[in-house]
Amino acid sequence: MTQLRNLLKSITDFSESELDVICSCFTTQHIKKNAMVLAAGDICRDFYYVSKGCLRTYFMTMQGDEKTRLLLPGHTIGTALTSFISQKPSVEFMDALEDTELLSITHADFYRLVETMPQFRTFYIRILEMAYSFQNRAIENRVTLTAKQRFELVLESNPALIQTVSNKVLASYLDIRQETLSRLKSK
Amino acid sequence: MTQLRNLLKSITDFSESELDVICSCFTTQHIKKNAMVLAAGDICRDFYYVSKGCLRTYFMTMQGDEKTRLLLPGHTIGTALTSFISQKPSVEFMDALEDTELLSITHADFYRLVETMPQFRTFYIRILEMAYSFQNRAIENRVTLTAKQRFELVLESNPALIQTVSNKVLASYLDIRQETLSRLKSK
Repeated sequence: MTQLRNLLKSITDFSESELDVICSCFTTQHIKKNAMVLAAGDICRDFYYVSKGCLRTYFMTMQGDEKTRLLLPGHTIGTALTSFISQKPSVEFMDALEDTELLSITHADFYRLVETMPQFRTFYIRILEMAYSFQNRAIENRVTLTAKQRFELVLESNPALIQTVSNKVLASYLDIRQETLSRLKSK
Repeated sequence: MTQLRNLLKSITDFSESELDVICSCFTTQHIKKNAMVLAAGDICRDFYYVSKGCLRTYFMTMQGDEKTRLLLPGHTIGTALTSFISQKPSVEFMDALEDTELLSITHADFYRLVETMPQFRTFYIRILEMAYSFQNRAIENRVTLTAKQRFELVLESNPALIQTVSNKVLASYLDIRQETLSRLKSK
């Protein structure tokens, strides 16, 4: 919980008593490696803090290929946000790439905090701004950067991902072929 | 302004006096067809309501092709949101596809309303949720739907776009080839 408190404080200026209230809404879950956290068609009912391990969200193409959209390694927050917001069935899947420890808050508790705690509304605005900007940058990067530049961006911003995530998943995350990724990693 | 008031009310339950305050921050602009509203490298300083005409945002690929991300026909709101949020230089361009009439609010006025008017905070949360979900659905659709299905989605949700937007822009918006679009339109 200390790490979660620190992360929350780094995003919004919460008081200690506000952090107590927020953290009391989170419960711990343990997910085995490769276990599905959310299947397409299910409604995403939780928002996560990943304390250990790694979650990812992905779409399934019409050809049956997995397209990784988001990687959530340790000490990050996130969820299948479109379904979480709308409370309608998810198009994307979510699974654990490693044995993973999560702290999770339900949709009901999350939106109760948004309604009742002004600072949590500010926090939610920041989360949405960050999620939107991340998503738009991902689209930009796929259009305006080379495979090598996209690889180098991850290498700079989150080198641990390069070590821990399989080539198959990382290649689909970067939208490059596995052979290209292997060549870039070997340099 | 009446149309803007109606649009604002359809998103958030504003009082008439709140709508007066909000609308007093908007000023009218006229943009000629094909004029640039925002160049890549510029900071996006305005949020728009398109009263007539059509705005679009697009990225430039490394090969110099335009990739249309967003179309804003009459009676919609939006902007180059990543740059508007961060107040850092935009990667995407914004131009007018037709002679266009805009009502615009500056970043400073917009965030002053977010800070001072609780209902405008609620409005901003809805805008961000909608923008995020739209963006994520666009990624989903490109991965999980056929060209024909993506065309039919626009045909159902916004048939006027099919008539008014050039084949070149619409094809890049749908991420399909112009020949494919011509074939789909002829059916």
